[in-house]
Amino acid sequence: MATFREIGEFGFIERIGAAGLPRAAGVYCGIGDDCAVLACENHRVRLITSDLMVEGVHFVAEGSEPHWLGHKLLAVNLSDIAAMGGEPREAVVSLAIPPDLDVGFMERVYRGLRELASRYGVNVVGGDTARSTGPLVMNLTLTGEMDPERVCYRSGANPGDLIYVSGTLGDAAAGLKLAPGEAVGLSEQDREFLLCRHHRPEPRVVLGRALAASGAVTAMLDLSDGMASDLRHICRQSGVSAVIDGATIPVSPAFRRFRELSGAGTRNLAITGGEDYELLFTVAQRGRDVVEALAAGTEISCIGRIVKGDGRIFLENARGLKTELDARGFEHFSGSPAP
Amino acid sequence: MATFREIGEFGFIERIGAAGLPRAAGVYCGIGDDCAVLACENHRVRLITSDLMVEGVHFVAEGSEPHWLGHKLLAVNLSDIAAMGGEPREAVVSLAIPPDLDVGFMERVYRGLRELASRYGVNVVGGDTARSTGPLVMNLTLTGEMDPERVCYRSGANPGDLIYVSGTLGDAAAGLKLAPGEAVGLSEQDREFLLCRHHRPEPRVVLGRALAASGAVTAMLDLSDGMASDLRHICRQSGVSAVIDGATIPVSPAFRRFRELSGAGTRNLAITGGEDYELLFTVAQRGRDVVEALAAGTEISCIGRIVKGDGRIFLENARGLKTELDARGFEHFSGSPAP
Repeated sequence: MATFREIGEFGFIERIGAAGLPRAAGVYCGIGDDCAVLACENHRVRLITSDLMVEGVHFVAEGSEPHWLGHKLLAVNLSDIAAMGGEPREAVVSLAIPPDLDVGFMERVYRGLRELASRYGVNVVGGDTARSTGPLVMNLTLTGEMDPERVCYRSGANPGDLIYVSGTLGDAAAGLKLAPGEAVGLSEQDREFLLCRHHRPEPRVVLGRALAASGAVTAMLDLSDGMASDLRHICRQSGVSAVIDGATIPVSPAFRRFRELSGAGTRNLAITGGEDYELLFTVAQRGRDVVEALAAGTEISCIGRIVKGDGRIFLENARGLKTELDARGFEHFSGSPAP
Repeated sequence: MATFREIGEFGFIERIGAAGLPRAAGVYCGIGDDCAVLACENHRVRLITSDLMVEGVHFVAEGSEPHWLGHKLLAVNLSDIAAMGGEPREAVVSLAIPPDLDVGFMERVYRGLRELASRYGVNVVGGDTARSTGPLVMNLTLTGEMDPERVCYRSGANPGDLIYVSGTLGDAAAGLKLAPGEAVGLSEQDREFLLCRHHRPEPRVVLGRALAASGAVTAMLDLSDGMASDLRHICRQSGVSAVIDGATIPVSPAFRRFRELSGAGTRNLAITGGEDYELLFTVAQRGRDVVEALAAGTEISCIGRIVKGDGRIFLENARGLKTELDARGFEHFSGSPAP
């Protein structure tokens, strides 16, 4: 007998992902990427993805702004569609609700969800509602569409490709750690920025579509479990390794100040901290100019390169010294970010 | 402030269902039927539905056969696709799992799910796995496809139409009540039959498709909350009332014996008991022969007729006396079937 605490999320996915499909025809990609990719008519593919949020694991109901819970529930799914380069379409929402929860709380959750939905043209078309005997559990399934030729899988990275990320890393993980008494001396403005990055991630849907349309991206995913952990998926699924230049990892001024004021435990947070919901993607050398021109409006940073190898990740310092990263990122069943 | 215990599932759906859609074009049906119905290419529509199962509400993990939990999780969703007359396609599964759960338990859940999936050509293409701080929660989202001209909504019933159900009613609700000490004297065989009807519902996918293809069905849904409660959805959404002939409600021999051996509380179980997962549908008089010929292999029973009215349901006895049914069926937030 083994428990989920022992084998973890990825151990379980490996076990259940091994079985085949009854109708393999028309399935471009099943379990193992940000979305499943399915053939549909007129040379389009459908994308489908699902993400859960559990009270006490992903959020605390007491003191959370319900509006932002709804926003985040959709945002994390939009981020998966963005990571394939797709256009979001329909959502269904399932809720397990403690019976004594205030209905107004869930109405505010829905308002936040709908506001983000209308910005991206997502229709919330149904779902299911049941009683929970424990925490509030919310699941959202989101569909998308796109051109099959443009789908950005995790498995296309090649030695020599450059590694990029959008935005800045570690902000959301810092926001999660901002309990009273942490990072004493941090300004209200910095605190607000980091909390906002944690509670209200802005999915990179527009950037994801533009990157996919450019044809220059060889592999892409969204950062949910921490950069080191997520980059490992690209490396393993592409059969390559990666070298990250530590000095180029983009961090925000607020994060930098947070790190200075906090303990040693936050030193690697930009590399291991979860819930960035930024895009990480690889680009062949010849695609470099295309990608950098296209992302002029949005910050993107080149943080390293793909090398030959077997799924390992190395961190290189300014003197060219490489250390292998053993970062696990966020592991849901152990319940805490890696140090 | 109002709680979910007070307003119930349908009260909540009414509140959130009122808001519009950002892209109304191409949405045949959003919230309010067994599935959402969405335009896709080549004169087909896509169906999408979602159903949750919560430990302690829909099942008890201790003593449950995990294989049948997986079967049921998919079966209840297949039943929604069947209720539109559709062909099931892809499933995504989200799980909130207590960390100390045995992995073997969830592997058996998946085996049950996959066995049923392969019988109906359903691909399980992804999902999400997270830790639960409370009960095991399982959500499945299922897609389907069909001809838009053949979709069987809840809203098409007309006065004069006949009301049919498939199979027998009340078995699953009786199975749920079969705790030790209940229905003393019931044979092992009857007990097994009723438990089986509760734990292993067989979705009426083939019948649903045949009924939809016949063109004779005016409205259809699947029975999940209890016949009286579910028929009310058809009546309200079609703007009609219904008269049920109590003597024609199909019950199994095992159910009949269970009812004789149990208390007065089980008298109306075939009318109010949930989780039948049979189809309830209405047929215009001229379609009667078509439907009865087509269902020759599967049992269907005519149990009443649609009349002019405003969403009420009457039960008629052998002497023609009508009483209005106030049955609520299964209400998830009060947590127990109606008496």
